Amino acid sequence: MKIREAVLTPVAFADPPLLNAMGVHEPFALRSVVQLVGEDGTTGLGESYGDEAFLTQARKVAAELAGWDVFDLPGLRRIVARTIGGAVYADQHGLTGGFSVGKTLASVYSLFEVAALDAQGKILGRPVSDLLGGRARDEVEFSAYLFYKYGAHLDDDRADDWGEVLTPDQVVGEARRMVDTYGFRSIKLKGGVLPPEQEIEAVRALAEAFPDHPLRIDPNGAWKPETGIEVARQLDGVLEYLEDPTPGIAGMARVAEHAGMPLATNMCVVRFADLAPAFRANAVGVVLSDHHFWGGLRDTQALSVACESFGVGLSMHSNSHLGISLAAMVHVAAATPHLSYACDTHWPWKSSDVVAPGTLEFRDGAVKVPDGPGLGVELDPDALARAHEDYLRCGLTKRDDVTYMRRYVGTFEPNTERW
Amino acid sequence: MKIREAVLTPVAFADPPLLNAMGVHEPFALRSVVQLVGEDGTTGLGESYGDEAFLTQARKVAAELAGWDVFDLPGLRRIVARTIGGAVYADQHGLTGGFSVGKTLASVYSLFEVAALDAQGKILGRPVSDLLGGRARDEVEFSAYLFYKYGAHLDDDRADDWGEVLTPDQVVGEARRMVDTYGFRSIKLKGGVLPPEQEIEAVRALAEAFPDHPLRIDPNGAWKPETGIEVARQLDGVLEYLEDPTPGIAGMARVAEHAGMPLATNMCVVRFADLAPAFRANAVGVVLSDHHFWGGLRDTQALSVACESFGVGLSMHSNSHLGISLAAMVHVAAATPHLSYACDTHWPWKSSDVVAPGTLEFRDGAVKVPDGPGLGVELDPDALARAHEDYLRCGLTKRDDVTYMRRYVGTFEPNTERW
Repeated sequence: MKIREAVLTPVAFADPPLLNAMGVHEPFALRSVVQLVGEDGTTGLGESYGDEAFLTQARKVAAELAGWDVFDLPGLRRIVARTIGGAVYADQHGLTGGFSVGKTLASVYSLFEVAALDAQGKILGRPVSDLLGGRARDEVEFSAYLFYKYGAHLDDDRADDWGEVLTPDQVVGEARRMVDTYGFRSIKLKGGVLPPEQEIEAVRALAEAFPDHPLRIDPNGAWKPETGIEVARQLDGVLEYLEDPTPGIAGMARVAEHAGMPLATNMCVVRFADLAPAFRANAVGVVLSDHHFWGGLRDTQALSVACESFGVGLSMHSNSHLGISLAAMVHVAAATPHLSYACDTHWPWKSSDVVAPGTLEFRDGAVKVPDGPGLGVELDPDALARAHEDYLRCGLTKRDDVTYMRRYVGTFEPNTERW
Repeated sequence: MKIREAVLTPVAFADPPLLNAMGVHEPFALRSVVQLVGEDGTTGLGESYGDEAFLTQARKVAAELAGWDVFDLPGLRRIVARTIGGAVYADQHGLTGGFSVGKTLASVYSLFEVAALDAQGKILGRPVSDLLGGRARDEVEFSAYLFYKYGAHLDDDRADDWGEVLTPDQVVGEARRMVDTYGFRSIKLKGGVLPPEQEIEAVRALAEAFPDHPLRIDPNGAWKPETGIEVARQLDGVLEYLEDPTPGIAGMARVAEHAGMPLATNMCVVRFADLAPAFRANAVGVVLSDHHFWGGLRDTQALSVACESFGVGLSMHSNSHLGISLAAMVHVAAATPHLSYACDTHWPWKSSDVVAPGTLEFRDGAVKVPDGPGLGVELDPDALARAHEDYLRCGLTKRDDVTYMRRYVGTFEPNTERW
């Protein structure tokens, strides 16, 4: 089926003041939604980053897609390469590793690849998971994703209903609510916010409160290698894996040599060219895939086989996202046998969406693979319009946790390798 | 679509007395053809090895497939693993590396995966290349595959029409006919038959006669590492790549260190577990994929990404095969951008087939990707029956080049690391 047009809509949705090594989440998270409209009226949905730097590249590609056949994914790759050339999309948050031409191509390609697979599935009457080789599992497990957080945004007159989370007790409280509501069976704490000893204390409190839940902590490279080694020592037997304790392959390899648990990353291995140096250095035990920057669903599956070949595990990273991306994550995870860790998701932190409710539901921490054709989710046009209005109204055009954090703490610098 | 039954038919077709490091081809090559018959009557075709050791495992799986859905490839993998357990299929020729449980599972799985993809494509009305992500190219280039050969089989009363090929002049003559007939634009010589200096002489004669054709030689590990280094030195600037000069990753790494051209292999890297040691040792520059033992078409694509990630090229290996396998090779090669070398094929060495003629034709050394649904080839029931008759009549149940060679040369031993 040939594409008639590709409609790209930037959207925003409310996001709580969640803390990380780079600062704090702004009041709105930005996303882009693409609708590939075929000559026969079939529509394919995709979702990705919503900052202006990404939209600029995605818009250029969208304008070139008329007449392209949604079954021709190599053709899409050529269009993306030709259109955006050597441009580099540099997000502002720096939480998913370095920037490069290759990662930019993979990211922009991914937005449209997901939409193409959705369209293919709708045309063929099959779920996307079938186009990816079929389901290795009928439901995909996710992990509770805990954040330290402030009680309220700065210009807000009232706290969000999660309240402030800065102490171990508050972290356990947040976890309790999240586990009770969604049934998560494993727990991740976003760290890199407080001095490591306080975050160790929080993990220990979680271990005591949830003795049967595998635990992870992710300081986003906030620690020096020595600190990573020390934290690994103190949390030996407590963590399922330790995520990005320190930046870079060399630093990760130093920590890995001494750590009792696998090291996971979505920062030092973020494109296929990173596999060789990272695997040769035994720097990582788990790669956190993310189809948004790994080149889409099919390349995420290829990444899985590369990891499996080298005895490296595969889990899944998440940024703030909506239902289209969750559906894509669920389909690819279901069709990727080696992806056997519970995946990350920011899902509980948002309160609106652009897809019609009902299809994507968490039970016992897992989401059933949608059975409908394509991604199996339906766009709610009114919700999309509202989210686009929010995008226009909020005035944000990039994610900049650092600058926003400086309004809370004037002297703030990113915590990269701080401790 | 659920499977009603899987019909497995062993077939044989006439094969000339082609020479290699393990001996000489017997008068018939054996293959298996599977027909997956769905509840709605749709049929999916697959083709693979035909020796009894393989058929034994494939038959067990075929008997378990009733009720299995052809879109459920992870389910197929489970059925294969459960059914054949820890069995190891050891072919008798040893030309594609070692044997293992994993390679056995991948080989048996592949037979049925190809048939499942053919059925999927027929159900969905799309060519298999579309199910693999779409075509990066519309036609797939193949290499002329030259063999040293005897003029006639032992119990035959007349020579085949290729005649004896043992001298450089005869090699050039064989190449000339093959290039003239099929239009091949690159040339591979199967070596490991004569002392290396004679094979070097043949390659030099080919280079002189075909100055614009990239050349390869493949002695199937017949040389010691020192010999490999010396041949690489003598053929520097002449060969596109040097294939399996010596057995094993360690030996290949020694040769690779000194060779000016990339080393290719389908012997020391034959399963995903081989990638880590081979890539870490920089032992190979090109992996010769083969969906028959790499776990099917989708895993061949995953292999491609793993190779690309490590800066390793990808080409394609061939055993004696029929049209179903050629169609599968063409579809996967078309949908695998990194597979950019001309592929190997034994096609010119056979004179019959089980598929209806017309779809698969060589023009300028390339085969156009079939446009029809699935693999795009049709089984000819009469031809299948004849080929099965030939299987029963020829009395062969395994490929054993060594024993047959001893009827020509009583003292023959395989040439593995001989020179």
